Formats: sequence, structure tokens, C-alpha cells
Amino acid sequence: MKWWGWGAEGHEFSDADKPDLWPYIVRQLGHDWQPARQPPVPRSSIRLPDSRLHGQPLRHLRQLLAGEQLRLDEDERLVHALGKSFRDLWQVRQGRIAAAPDAVVYPGSEADVQALLRWAVEHDVVLIPFGGGSNIAGCLDAHDPLGRPVVSLDMSRLGRVLEVDAASRVARIESGVFGPDLERQLASHGMTLGHFPDSFLHSTLGGWIATRSAGMQSDKYGKIEDMVLALRVVTPAGTLVTRPVPRASNGIDVNRLCIGSEGILGVITEATVQVHPLPPATLWQGYLFPRLESGLEAVRECVAAGCSPAITRLNDARKTALSFAFKSRRGRVRGALAAALKAWLRHARRFQFADCCLLLVKFEGTRRQIGRQRRLVNGIYRRYGAVSLGSEPGRAFERGKFDFPHLRDWLLDRGVYADVSETATVWSNLGPLYSAVMAELDRALHSTRCPGWTGCHVSHTYPSGASLYFTFAWADRLEAAEQHYDCLKRAAEDAFLRGGATLSHHHAVGREHLPWISDDISPTGVQAVQALKRGLDPRNIMNPGKLIPASPGEGPPADPTSSAEASE
Amino acid sequence: MKWWGWGAEGHEFSDADKPDLWPYIVRQLGHDWQPARQPPVPRSSIRLPDSRLHGQPLRHLRQLLAGEQLRLDEDERLVHALGKSFRDLWQVRQGRIAAAPDAVVYPGSEADVQALLRWAVEHDVVLIPFGGGSNIAGCLDAHDPLGRPVVSLDMSRLGRVLEVDAASRVARIESGVFGPDLERQLASHGMTLGHFPDSFLHSTLGGWIATRSAGMQSDKYGKIEDMVLALRVVTPAGTLVTRPVPRASNGIDVNRLCIGSEGILGVITEATVQVHPLPPATLWQGYLFPRLESGLEAVRECVAAGCSPAITRLNDARKTALSFAFKSRRGRVRGALAAALKAWLRHARRFQFADCCLLLVKFEGTRRQIGRQRRLVNGIYRRYGAVSLGSEPGRAFERGKFDFPHLRDWLLDRGVYADVSETATVWSNLGPLYSAVMAELDRALHSTRCPGWTGCHVSHTYPSGASLYFTFAWADRLEAAEQHYDCLKRAAEDAFLRGGATLSHHHAVGREHLPWISDDISPTGVQAVQALKRGLDPRNIMNPGKLIPASPGEGPPADPTSSAEASE
Repeated sequence: MKWWGWGAEGHEFSDADKPDLWPYIVRQLGHDWQPARQPPVPRSSIRLPDSRLHGQPLRHLRQLLAGEQLRLDEDERLVHALGKSFRDLWQVRQGRIAAAPDAVVYPGSEADVQALLRWAVEHDVVLIPFGGGSNIAGCLDAHDPLGRPVVSLDMSRLGRVLEVDAASRVARIESGVFGPDLERQLASHGMTLGHFPDSFLHSTLGGWIATRSAGMQSDKYGKIEDMVLALRVVTPAGTLVTRPVPRASNGIDVNRLCIGSEGILGVITEATVQVHPLPPATLWQGYLFPRLESGLEAVRECVAAGCSPAITRLNDARKTALSFAFKSRRGRVRGALAAALKAWLRHARRFQFADCCLLLVKFEGTRRQIGRQRRLVNGIYRRYGAVSLGSEPGRAFERGKFDFPHLRDWLLDRGVYADVSETATVWSNLGPLYSAVMAELDRALHSTRCPGWTGCHVSHTYPSGASLYFTFAWADRLEAAEQHYDCLKRAAEDAFLRGGATLSHHHAVGREHLPWISDDISPTGVQAVQALKRGLDPRNIMNPGKLIPASPGEGPPADPTSSAEASE
Repeated sequence: MKWWGWGAEGHEFSDADKPDLWPYIVRQLGHDWQPARQPPVPRSSIRLPDSRLHGQPLRHLRQLLAGEQLRLDEDERLVHALGKSFRDLWQVRQGRIAAAPDAVVYPGSEADVQALLRWAVEHDVVLIPFGGGSNIAGCLDAHDPLGRPVVSLDMSRLGRVLEVDAASRVARIESGVFGPDLERQLASHGMTLGHFPDSFLHSTLGGWIATRSAGMQSDKYGKIEDMVLALRVVTPAGTLVTRPVPRASNGIDVNRLCIGSEGILGVITEATVQVHPLPPATLWQGYLFPRLESGLEAVRECVAAGCSPAITRLNDARKTALSFAFKSRRGRVRGALAAALKAWLRHARRFQFADCCLLLVKFEGTRRQIGRQRRLVNGIYRRYGAVSLGSEPGRAFERGKFDFPHLRDWLLDRGVYADVSETATVWSNLGPLYSAVMAELDRALHSTRCPGWTGCHVSHTYPSGASLYFTFAWADRLEAAEQHYDCLKRAAEDAFLRGGATLSHHHAVGREHLPWISDDISPTGVQAVQALKRGLDPRNIMNPGKLIPASPGEGPPADPTSSAEASE
């Protein structure tokens, strides 16, 4: 894993076959803007503070683990020091590591995890559960408000699919398995989990559950919380174990106490989840809508008609233009065809290209099911003025679907900063919220005086509503970028909360969204989560300072920005 | 509401048009059995202990409420003293009321509820939230382990649908609304919640949410926890408020902390829920399977094929025989037709009637959707040897669907005791669990030496499994019936837990299932719920003694039967 960016060393984004992309970016950021190279500092210039783990606690730890399960070297501590949030990358590329874990441990079994928790309680050491390290909400921040030693608990050795019940379509799986390995193991049983977040290559089942993740095919397979039947979670108070049943009325659902707990209650070691047979066929279709409103209405009507393809992803006009800027070099014939289509749209259909919105749809199932779904959505889309673009835009999306996080590193190298804020709301509020958030982002961008760009797409549809995923990018000087990020992030999140929506649809709270949690789930909701935390982790050794403000009297507050200040 | 049984005074079960029913029961219970009338004691013979609410607390309470919102009379206190569990009815019919509330209050607004909670905290009074009073797990038991005054908080005045968002298909609704009134209000918007539990006529939205209820059409509309987008819950620590969004990643889902909380954390005052357009058409179809296993496989295959009609209800052979005993008098022609069908099944299809299983299916949607679903399931059912019985068995079920609880009172009058235990498990375990539980119930029945009957149906199907609903009935002497009930109930619940299933699929924990909660959600799960309880209700004034054993050091345990003893 790269210490300075997304994914594994050696794999980076390239615009080599995307001739329109850089010119598009330059055009968006304005003629006055001069791109400036801002590469990360060399690895050799980074020096972490010495590990504070020694003496009796370290000796005791060495007794619990085999040699290679305990790592104290700087390389290991560095890649476990942070996640991949804007703030994480902004810091690490400058070689500024606010806090790093004092050690990294690799449990090989649930018994190891139990022993590590007992050890941590005994020696008052903080543990931070670590899956793939891809979190972008500050969930992995290694700073302990009380200044105790911190150990990163890397779950990657617990990676097996333990059991597949084909008749019930459920699988029991260790939490440390990464996306591709999980799908490989399930595919040998003809099954899939159907969970494909942008981070799929570099994130784990346990991480998905701890953060209430959503995959791009959630319209068919559900969000991760919809997939979990049972969990095993090691907490400082004992190991919580639930039963693999489809539904129950056994009081408060304790699975749900652990889903979304972001490591603050304990370590998820195992999950029993719903799986599905691999779809026999898939089909991509792209459509162009004359404007966003018509696309939103069409998508809503499809969901209301009971038709939810595996993916329905609607770009706003700005993100549509960006999508087309990603197109690769094409031959003379295809170029001529595209020009002809464009001319026809402009003249015969009176499309205003500045308003057009691209919708990508992925169908899954038998040929017959796909045919039926496609006829149904085509009929609805047509009534809203959509034009079919065939399967190529969707196939292009599929080819690059896990590249988006690499693009951010590529932009950072060029002095362009980018991040995202996403939310969900009911259908009736989707249009108004979109407008309000875009206005606030544009206003905030203007206040930074930086050249910038904003865009949005709609995905993850439900009977009651959908998610809105905003991207903002701006060209900046290194020194000012964090302050401008705060300004933009706050504009988006304040607008979400003011507009009746939630702080995140699938990116977790961590430290990044902490200023909005009290407004989102109400102060009494925060008290409820704090009570759970006190009950299961009375010494606050599990991932402190994330998800909820510290309880009163628990030492210094985890985040200096209080909820009240943040919502000014 | 009747103080001695189910529903409203004046509405009772009658076998007047069911000539086969009583003979069937007599046959099942054996020739030695002599039915004996066991009517409830007269109301006049019941005398409740005097209300312990007086002095300053009572004066203060009178200041908070209008005159008719506070009731201290014995009739009100009696109908709020218990729910409708076997134990409740067995006691109350003998005039033995172990504990009754000292007062009944009828808040007219959320502000009233907040004032009542503040009052209760100030004066150390126990509050028991009361919806329709139909709970059968002892959730309404008015006994406080610490001997404090107890007030029943009847939510029936908060009965309005406040807002319907037709585009998003969500409605904001006060929690005290009863089923029929809720559906009437929603129908004026062309909508339905689609939640029809057996208790529908006599239960409320808040009660459904507090107990994780399931309606008979859950295969289409989901269980109540699947319908809730947002809640307002008044707790002693403040009012918890969540946002109406389809999904979120805002940490632990605090909606789910309240769903299934059975009144121990606070009072649900309002919910925002998913609603659906009223279906344009419905169709019942009955089928007869040669044996249970083939029915189970056929139903599983339909769910796997993505086809879930609104209801799929499969009776085992014993319940099938009982169903047919409910048939009403019929004309000579229909009688002859039924006889001919029976002869054909026996001779041409070689059906063994002792093994046959009735499956009832209700389709909903447009004619076209119904046609498609019906073709799909017919094809699958046929492969498993099913014979179609047309729509009459389903229509008969529909006519009597809310009568089952009345039947229990009618049987109690005749010295026949009856109750239910239900659970859920994964498909692969459904057959083995069914056999194990039936064997345990038959063994327990044998040990009581009472003539009796057991049966089961499968309903509430999910991709991963389904529920199993066991009914047991036995003829008994009044004095011995509670002890025999304990024996039967324990046999069923022990078999559920030993067989990997849950203590209940939709009937809640209350006091009745308390002996199994620790086994079901694990001791650490119990600690988690206790932590929540301590955090939001530190004085334990909200419905104490239900759902979880009392925390260590919280006074006498809520239930003398400890989990360890119960699972012997």
C-alpha cells in the first residue's frame, strides 16, 4: 500500500489515452490558472516519533503473538497512521504525520483478537481496528486524546470464507477479507456478495460493516447493513455473538449496534451475510436526458414501478461534461458518428448540451429479466425525453470504476485538490437539496478565490429516495488548501443538515463528520451511542475520538470543533 | 376492550357456521376427554389493590393533564394491567391480578409525554407505554421489581397521520394510531402501510415498532423495522429525533436502538414510514402439497427466483387438517365437488391426506404483475407435486384472518388451553428445526399427560429463510394449566435456541421470553442493551423487568428464572 496515496505502489492514474481530460480541467479552472507540480515529499524525509511501546506491555505483547504478527518498523507504522481522506493525504504528502501508531499487530484468529483486547485493557493501550485503510472520514486517525500508546490492529490475516450455505444463500466470512479475494472465494461456489464500493480493491468486509458502506450495485443487493444476518464482535466487555436468522423480534437488534460502530465498541471478526448466485448476464445502457429534473423524475418513476436495475447513476450537467472528457481516442468512423449524433441532438431534438445529463444503467439477470427491465425503463425514460447512447458509456465507466481515487492523487500532483461529500434524502427533496448544496458549494468556492469546479451524481436509489454525491475540486497553494477544504466541506455538510438530509450516505462519521453528528442524530441520539460506548468499552481504548464526541468527564473533547460552532 | 380476553366486548368467536370444528377438536383431544366449562370470574368479584398514587405526585400530575386524561378508576386500571399472553388471560380469568397500574394517563401530544416523563423521573414513578394492549409476551406487566407506583401511559390519543409525501411514498404518523384507523387515513391518499399483524384491529404503530412486529404481508412490505425511516422517541434523557432519509452512514443507526426497545428506553411518539400505493388487484390461490418437505422446497425456490407474493403461508399436515375443520356448511353441489376432488387426489394422485399440506398464496399488483407471478409460482409448485385448490381456501382465510385470537378465548371457555411460539431460521435449517421442535412439543405434551394438539405453519419468507409458527393446545384443569404451559413453552423455546434459531420472529421478548434472551443475543449483547438502558433511563422508570435482565446492582432481578436455569 502506498503511504502517500491510494492503492498499491505501481498503479496510478494516467491520462495517456484521454486526450480531452487535461484540456477540460484547464478550461474549467480558467485561463489565469498556472498548474504547479506539488509532488509528495520523499519517503526518506519522513521521520515518525519513536514508538512508545516498550517495557512490560511490549514484552507481554511479544508473548501473545508470533514474530511476524507484531511490527514496530516505521514503514508499517506509517501506512497504518492514516486513512485516505483529503486531510490525510494533504498531511502525509507534506510529510506531516500528526500521530502514528506505536505498533501494528496482525491477529491470525479471533482468539488473537480477544487476547489483544485483554492486553490493551490491562495496559491501557488504544486499539484502532484496521481493514484496508481506505476510509476517507478520518476513522483511522491514530491520535489518542489521552495520550496513551496506540496500536493498529490489522485484520488482513482473517480472510477466509468459512462456510457457504447454498440453499439459504448465506455465507459465514472472516472480517479481514478484501473485496477481490472475497468475490473470488464466493465465485467458486457460484455466488457473489454484490458489494462493490469504489474502494472495493482496497477495503474489507469488516470495514464495510463498521462504516455502513454502500456498493455501486446497492439498488439490487442492498447496503451492507441489509446483507448482515449475524456478527461476531470482540469488545472489551466480552465477545458479542448473534444468530444467523433472517429476521427476529428479540428486543433491540444487537447486530445493528455493531454495524456502523466504526471500531469504537470492538472488533468485528466474522459476519454471516446474504449472498446471491452470480448473474447469468449483464447489460449496460447509457441515456442522455435534456436536463437533470427530467432524469430525476424518470429514475423515481422506475423505482416506483418496482424496477431497480443493479446500477442507476445519473450525472448532473457538470459531471456529464466531465464524463465525456474521459473518453479515449477514437477512430475516424466513430468520431464522425459521434459528431453526427451530436448534430442530430442539437437540431432535431433541440438538446442544450450545457444542460444534458448522462444516465448509466446496469441490468443484471437472465436475458429475459434484463429484456423486461429494459423495456420498462426505456418506456419511462422516453417519456422524459431521454435518448439512448448504447452500451459504450456504461462499459467505459465499468473499465474505470475503481480508478476514481487514483485520479485524486494525479490531481494533487498537479496542484488540484479534490474531495467529495455525499448524502441521501427523500425523492421530494432531491431536486431542492441538489440546488441548495450546489449554490452553497459555489458560494464557498467563490469565497476561497480559487479557480474550481463542482459536480454531482445521483445513485443508490430506494423506494423513498436516493443519494446525492457531490464532488468539488479547486486549484490551490499547498499552505491554504486545508483551510479552503474546511470551507467547502462545511458548506456541503451544513447544507445537507439544513436541508433535512444526513451527514453521509456511505462514508461514515469518523473525525471528519463529527461536527455534524449531534445535529444529525440529535443530542439524545449521541447520548445513546455514548452510553453503549461506556458500557462495552468503559476505558475508551477502542478507536477513541471517532463517531461521537467524548462523554462529559472523559478527558479532553475528541474534536475542538463543537457541533454548535460547526453549524454556524 | 375486554378485561378478560381479546378485542372489544361483544365480538366473540362462534362455531355456528363451522359444523366440523368442535368434532375435530374433540377427536384430537381423545375419547377420554370430557369438556368442562371454565368461564372467567364475574367482573364484580375482582377487586384491585388501592392506587398508591396520592399526595404531591398526584397533585402535580393533575396539574399536567386535563381531567379526562387521568384515570384512576378500577375499570381503566384493570384493562391496562395486562396484555393478552397465555399467562395474562389465565390469571385474569381467575380474577388473580398480580399487579395493576396505579393510574392510567392519556397524553394528547408529545409535549404531554415529555411532561409525564419529567414528572415520573421527579417522583420515581414507573411508566409503562401502552398501545393497543395486545402484546402476548408480557411486555405490559405492571409489576415493578422495586415496588414503586406504576402508571400506564396510553398512547391512543396520538392517532393522526400528520403528513403524506406522495412522491417519496413516506408518511409521518403519530404512534398511537390503531391499524384500521391508520389504513383509513392512508387510503384517503391512495396509500397503505401494508402492515397487517394478527393483532391489526387492536394494536398500534408505536406498539409494532416497539416490538419489531411483522404483518402477514411482510413478504411484500417488509417487517416493521424495514419500513421505518425516522422516529421521535421521548426518553428520560431527552427526546431522540432522527431524520427521514432512505439510508445513512451516520454511525450506529439510532433508529434501530429504539425499534424493538419494548418501552424500556422511552416512548415512541412519531414515526416516518415507507408507504405504498394501494394495490389495484389481489388474488388468492390455494394449493395442496403431498407433504411438508415438498412445500418447503417449492416456497424456497420461488423466493430464490425472486418471486415473493404478498402472502405465502404453508401449513403443516396437522394445521392443514385444522384449516379444513374450519370450513363452513356448504351446499350439496359444492359438497359433491369437494368429495370428487378428494377421491381424485387419493386415487389418481395418490395423496396421503394425513401428510397433505395446504399452501395459501396472496398475489397483489396489476393484473399483469399478478399473472406473471402466478405463472412463475405455478410452474414451480407443479414440479413439487402441488394441486391447485382455487381461490376459496384463501378467501376463507381472509374472512377469518383477525379471528384467531378470539378462538383462544372460546377454547379457554371450554377448558382447552392454547398458545403459540414462533421463530425464524435459514432455509437449510427449516426442515430439521421443524422436526426437532415438533418432537420436543410432543414429548412435553406427553409429560403433562394432558390430551393435546400441536401444529405449525411457515410464513414470512426472506431470501435467507422463513419463520416457523407453532401452535399448541391442550385440555387441562385450571390449577395445572400454567405449569403445563411453562413446560410446553420451554420445550419450544429451548428447541429454537438449541437449533440455532431465535426466541421469536415477531412476538417480542417482554417477560415471557426473558429466560432465553442471553442465549439468543449472547451475554455481551445483553450488556450492550443494559448499557443503553442505563444511559437513557438511569433510574429505570421505563417498563422495568422487560426485555433484559436487570443490570447487576439494580435491585432484585426482574425475573426469578435465570437464563442458565431455563436452558437446562
